[in-house]
Order: sequence, then C-alpha cells, then structure tokens
Amino acid sequence: MHQEAPAALSSAPLLFQLIQTSSGTEASTSRPARPKPGLRPGPNIKDTGSRMRGTLGLSLSLLVCLTLGLLCVGLACVWSSRFRGGFGWDGSGLEFNWHPVLMTTGLVVVYGYASVLYRVPMTWGQSKLLWKLLHAVLMLVALLLSVVGLCAVFDFHNKNHIPNIYSLHSWVGLCAVLLFAVQWGAGFSLFLLPWSPLSWRKAFKPVHVWLGGSILGLSIAACISGINEKLFFVLKGGNHSQPYSDLPSEAMLANSLGIVIVAFGLVVLYVLTNKRWQRPEAQPQDGAYAPLNQEETDS
Amino acid sequence: MHQEAPAALSSAPLLFQLIQTSSGTEASTSRPARPKPGLRPGPNIKDTGSRMRGTLGLSLSLLVCLTLGLLCVGLACVWSSRFRGGFGWDGSGLEFNWHPVLMTTGLVVVYGYASVLYRVPMTWGQSKLLWKLLHAVLMLVALLLSVVGLCAVFDFHNKNHIPNIYSLHSWVGLCAVLLFAVQWGAGFSLFLLPWSPLSWRKAFKPVHVWLGGSILGLSIAACISGINEKLFFVLKGGNHSQPYSDLPSEAMLANSLGIVIVAFGLVVLYVLTNKRWQRPEAQPQDGAYAPLNQEETDS
Repeated sequence: MHQEAPAALSSAPLLFQLIQTSSGTEASTSRPARPKPGLRPGPNIKDTGSRMRGTLGLSLSLLVCLTLGLLCVGLACVWSSRFRGGFGWDGSGLEFNWHPVLMTTGLVVVYGYASVLYRVPMTWGQSKLLWKLLHAVLMLVALLLSVVGLCAVFDFHNKNHIPNIYSLHSWVGLCAVLLFAVQWGAGFSLFLLPWSPLSWRKAFKPVHVWLGGSILGLSIAACISGINEKLFFVLKGGNHSQPYSDLPSEAMLANSLGIVIVAFGLVVLYVLTNKRWQRPEAQPQDGAYAPLNQEETDS
Repeated sequence: MHQEAPAALSSAPLLFQLIQTSSGTEASTSRPARPKPGLRPGPNIKDTGSRMRGTLGLSLSLLVCLTLGLLCVGLACVWSSRFRGGFGWDGSGLEFNWHPVLMTTGLVVVYGYASVLYRVPMTWGQSKLLWKLLHAVLMLVALLLSVVGLCAVFDFHNKNHIPNIYSLHSWVGLCAVLLFAVQWGAGFSLFLLPWSPLSWRKAFKPVHVWLGGSILGLSIAACISGINEKLFFVLKGGNHSQPYSDLPSEAMLANSLGIVIVAFGLVVLYVLTNKRWQRPEAQPQDGAYAPLNQEETDS
C-alpha cells in the first residue's frame, strides 16, 4: 500500500530536493502543474530564487514554531516551580502544578509539533508511512500527557473536596481532550490500519484536517481561560501577595505564557494553511518523487 | 476591473446554478477541471446526485451557522438582561452588561457571518464586487460593535476605579480587536481600492485568509476566558447567590453560551476550510460563470 521512494531519491542531495519541491508556483496547488512531455525545466535563475525563498520561509516558520513551543513549556515549568512551589503527587497544590505544565506541553506544544510534521522538508523525500507513524506516536504522547494532566487536577480536587467540571474552562478543556481522543482513534483506524477503504480515507481526510485545527483552537481557548482563572484564584492581594491587577512578576510571567501559547498556535496554523508548503505528492513524471501514498493525494 | 456576470446567468433558475456550481468533484480543487473541447457534460444522474448532496451539505451548514449565531446573541442578551439586571450607560454594572453582548455579537457572530458570505451559493452568480462590499461593510459593523463593547467595559472600570488591561482575558481580547482593525484596514486598501497592484493582492490574500481565521479563534478564546472570569466574579456564593460550583441556572446559561460560541466557530471554520464549497471562479468555458475577479482566483 505504501510505496517507498526510489533509492536514487534517498541519495539525492537534500538541498536539491528542497529546492525542487518547495516552489511557490508549482506547490501552490494540490496537483502540481505537469511539464510538457519531452520538456524538462532548465536551471531558471528566477525560479531557483523563488524556490529558495519558499524553502527559507518555511524553514524560518518551523524554527519559530519550535522556539515558541519550547518557550511555552519553559514558561509553564517556571510558573509552577518558581512561583507555585514546585511539583509533587500528594494531593496538595504541588500536584495541581502538573496540570498547567502537562496540558500546555501535551495539548498545545507536542500536538502542534505533530501537526506540522508533514511540513518539515526533510520528510518529503521519504516513505510517508514512516512519518505517519511518527505523527500518530507524537499525537499519542500528546494525548497521554493531557490525560495525566487531567488526572492531576481531578486528584487534587477530589482530595481537597473541590467540585470537578463546573467551570466553562473545564467544559471547553474536556471537550478538547475528548475530541482529541476521538480524532486519534478515528485517524489511527482510517489512515494507518490497512483495511480502511480508499473511499473512506478520501471522505474523512478533510474532516480530520479541520478537526485537527479545531482541537488546537479549543486547547488554546482552554489554556487562556485556565491561566486567567488560576491567576484570579491565587493573586487576590493581601498580606502575602500583590493582587493580579497590580501585575506582579507572576502575573506578567503567566500572562506572557498565554500570549506565547497564542503566538505558537498562530504560527502552527500559518504553516498548516500555507498551500505552498504542503508535502508534495505524486510527481512521478519529473522523476523527483514517487507516489508515496496515492490514496491521499486528492483528498 | 470587475466584470459583471452575463445577464443570461442572472435570469437562470437559482437551483440550476447551485447544482451546476457546487459539484463535489469539480469544486474540490481551486481550479475546476475543464471539459474536453467540443464535449459538454450531459445530464449524468450520478453527478447530479453528488452535486445535490454537496449543495445540501453547504446549505445545511450555513443554516446551522445562522442558527448558532442567533442563539449566541440570544443567550448573551438573556444573561445580561435576565440575570445581570439589564442595560444602561451610567457607569454601573448595567453599562458593563453591554460588554458580553456586543463582543459576542460583533467579534464572533457578525464577524463569522461576514467570513462565510462568499460561501453562500446565492452570491456565486453575481458580481464579486457587490459581495466584497457587503463583506467589508459587515466586517466594519462587527468592528464598530466590538469597539463600543470595549468602551462599555473601559467606562465601567474607570467610573468604578477598577484597573484596565491587566488580565490575560483583556490582553487576548485587545489583541483580537487590534488585529481585526489592522486586518480591516489592510483588506480595504488591498482588495477593495482599485489602485493596489495585482502582485500585492496575490501575495496578501493567503495572509488575509489565515489572519481572518486566527482573529476568530482569538475572539473565541477571549469570550471563553471572559465568561469564565465573570462567572467566578459574580457567583461567589453567600446570602444571595449560589456559588459557580453548584452550577445554578445563571452558570448553566453562561456556560452554554460559551459552548454555543465554540460550536459556532467550529461550523464557520468547517464551511471556510471545505474546498468543495469555495466560490467557483473563472469558468468561462462552460458558459456558467464569467471570470468575476481574475486577480484573486490563483491566490
């Protein structure tokens, strides 16, 4: 079912592959324009410059995405460890502190990295099955981190007799995790297991892509409302703390975490929606790429 | 610059136009497949059935979008009027009550309606300029409603000596409105005024589309965090009210508002991202549509 790329391709210089497949004009449609029979494109300086700029833009966006993701995880860790006393699994506030770190890491950062995996040019000349597997594994890691993050807050609430699932933050967050679980199960069954019919794959791929972006949006909304809620809870002002409205250093750091999460989401969506940066598929006629997975090229 | 659709088209039965332009197969790429020269597609029952299903799906989604939008506005009005005492412009809580209603109506509902305007099949056979103008006017209405909604909360805060712009909700909401203003100004200058170069239109349209979806996502995140924050403020429990955690009727209504806002956003994004439902452009060869605005068909 999954044809491997020709051996010659694997040994071709990476830069040449990148330039050949990230052209703004050719990659701007899902079906690249076929060259006229008998004609091979020559070394056009203008085209090469445009391709180089396209590759540079994509690489830069992926680098920004990577950096913002790491910054999200770093800021969440600093918030929990430096301002909220660190981590534990004893039913105290230290157990709750896993919640923002794990939800940010799983539901936003690892999820976002897994979403843009197919856009990494390094993956284009290789078997799509390998990268599908990595996409599924990364998504599973993201889902598991999110579930452990939910366990942390449920356990903390239960041991401290605090009701669960009443705030809008919790409703939205739970919707995000449930939809994510459904999406993972459906994606695994439809796109990885070999027995799903081709017509089903074609029909469900747009839904998979739309729901994928929607879950990221829901996750970000849940993070923003959760950070906002937590800061109002803990920064009430009094003998030992400044109120939230004075914007003490904890508020500045956690607000910044929220803004970096939003920026990360915007960059991920920019990479995903840019048609020029989609994985090139099925261009056998130019000898550069074998049809790695023809069943998905049209959907 | 903007060619009008042929008069014959305007008088064609609407149902025929819908069927002819919402085919699942043909409309699944931004450049519809051209029929072979000399061949005109005959009345294929299978194709017609597929087209009818495509049109039905789009019409149903638009109807759901319209209904959820009205429900959002209705729920926000009921929350403010029935549970928060109604409306006023006197610096009291009654002035604040405009804030959730106007932000939900402007930044989410009217914005969402304006976003999916080009997907309404009724608009396809007519001059795109007319619908561009309506898109711009609706977006301006959405922006003005949002600005009045911001004025309401700033005025309420100032008259009650409450600090402004410190919570993450306010940071995200303000980002959404500022980006919206920039987007409107750039969109007006680039896509409505006649002197912007074609190359600029082509280059900025993907950015306009991406930023448009991102602003809707930010607005929804701001709404969710704002509703969540307000409910924690007002439902503290005590002599006159149940706490938020008991989920009294106000909490149920406002949480439901949040969920309906999320559902509205998901349906809008589904309509926007479904390639089969994009406005068909430049199909002069089949006699159905003149190239209304060729400068945007390739971008």
